[in-house]
Amino acid sequence: MRPKIYLLGDSITEESFTEAGWGASLANHFARILDVVLRGYSGYNTRWVLKVLEKLFPEASPQGGGAPVAAVTVFFGANDATLPDRYSAFQHVPLHEYKQNLHSIVSFFKKRWPKAIILLITLPPIDEVARLLYPFADNPQGLPERTNEAAGEYAKACTAVAAECGVPVIDLWTKMQQCPDWKKEYLSDGLHLTKQGNRVVYEEVVAKLRDEGVSVESMAAELPLIADIDPNNPLKAFE
Amino acid sequence: MRPKIYLLGDSITEESFTEAGWGASLANHFARILDVVLRGYSGYNTRWVLKVLEKLFPEASPQGGGAPVAAVTVFFGANDATLPDRYSAFQHVPLHEYKQNLHSIVSFFKKRWPKAIILLITLPPIDEVARLLYPFADNPQGLPERTNEAAGEYAKACTAVAAECGVPVIDLWTKMQQCPDWKKEYLSDGLHLTKQGNRVVYEEVVAKLRDEGVSVESMAAELPLIADIDPNNPLKAFE
Repeated sequence: MRPKIYLLGDSITEESFTEAGWGASLANHFARILDVVLRGYSGYNTRWVLKVLEKLFPEASPQGGGAPVAAVTVFFGANDATLPDRYSAFQHVPLHEYKQNLHSIVSFFKKRWPKAIILLITLPPIDEVARLLYPFADNPQGLPERTNEAAGEYAKACTAVAAECGVPVIDLWTKMQQCPDWKKEYLSDGLHLTKQGNRVVYEEVVAKLRDEGVSVESMAAELPLIADIDPNNPLKAFE
Repeated sequence: MRPKIYLLGDSITEESFTEAGWGASLANHFARILDVVLRGYSGYNTRWVLKVLEKLFPEASPQGGGAPVAAVTVFFGANDATLPDRYSAFQHVPLHEYKQNLHSIVSFFKKRWPKAIILLITLPPIDEVARLLYPFADNPQGLPERTNEAAGEYAKACTAVAAECGVPVIDLWTKMQQCPDWKKEYLSDGLHLTKQGNRVVYEEVVAKLRDEGVSVESMAAELPLIADIDPNNPLKAFE
């Protein structure tokens, strides 16, 4: 059976199959090799997703196959990092709990799928001015519900967890800010991704998976490719 | 477990997760409801795919769950309809065999998943002038390897099979030609789809699935939506 990659995360994952989204691009890249399975939950933080991990990813029955899991991307932090005294406070998770929760999520997947690559992705940087232009709810305070400084703390925590657990990580917060025009180039509303921002995530995920041994080059395509079918005897390829 | 939709077909399916592709758009549309699983095989015809159906879709073991299959799209004909005396003749399947093969494919899925919607999709119309501009291989004859007239015969056969089997069908060949500028609007190389062409397929699939009872409105989203989570007691939603 064809191996899978699960994409687990918040809205930045849930929206990853919109036009030129990073999830759709991954599915296209691995079209004959891996199934890319979307598990994005808009607005979710690490605290909430921990409550449902067992339900979302039940233990495979010993008899019944189920495709092997090649990788899972874990992309949380954007909601955990909402500030505790702003309008999105109900999504906030304190930094130390965020770290603990990420540890728990990694442990869960290590136990569930010992051979799977667990790839952490930090939240992107935040453009506070844009956040004021695109609030999700009434914002009587007139203050951004997320700041880039706080986001940086959550990104650091995420990379620290990856190091502590010995799993790969994409430090999107740092990577995106290497582009001088990151606010306009990569973010559509100060938080979610433009096409170019999606491109960055896609390319980083492909590169990290390749580093870990999962790539189009190293894995067999499902069924013979048209270029490998003998025009003089096509059915031979299917014997 | 989350139900699945399989997309089975040739290159027009395999490429359906490129930018604004119909497969990616379906995955986005059903993001919290259904898994859209790509099973596109560039260059394949009904004869070849029949050889591998059992391998691609093995019978689920009685013990081991496996997610229910809500629907499967069967989108073949573009390669069957290559002309038998042109450069792509090795992909050609005669009309009567194409019909038989489609019947066999529908029977296979009816037996495998009795409750699944089996949605046939005809090949698109062919722009012969564009096919001469974008040949897949040497074309010393200087004649198109597909004609729109032949394509129409395969489309008619496909809609006939759907009627005979009592399954829904999208007559893409007819639908697309209702647009006066269909050659430029919907086709990128006289055969494959532009963004607008992908849009047509996406919208038709969503509409047909809705007719058959599979829609975002009629099915429950996986896990509570952020709008349904009480900001004063978020964890209540996860009890």
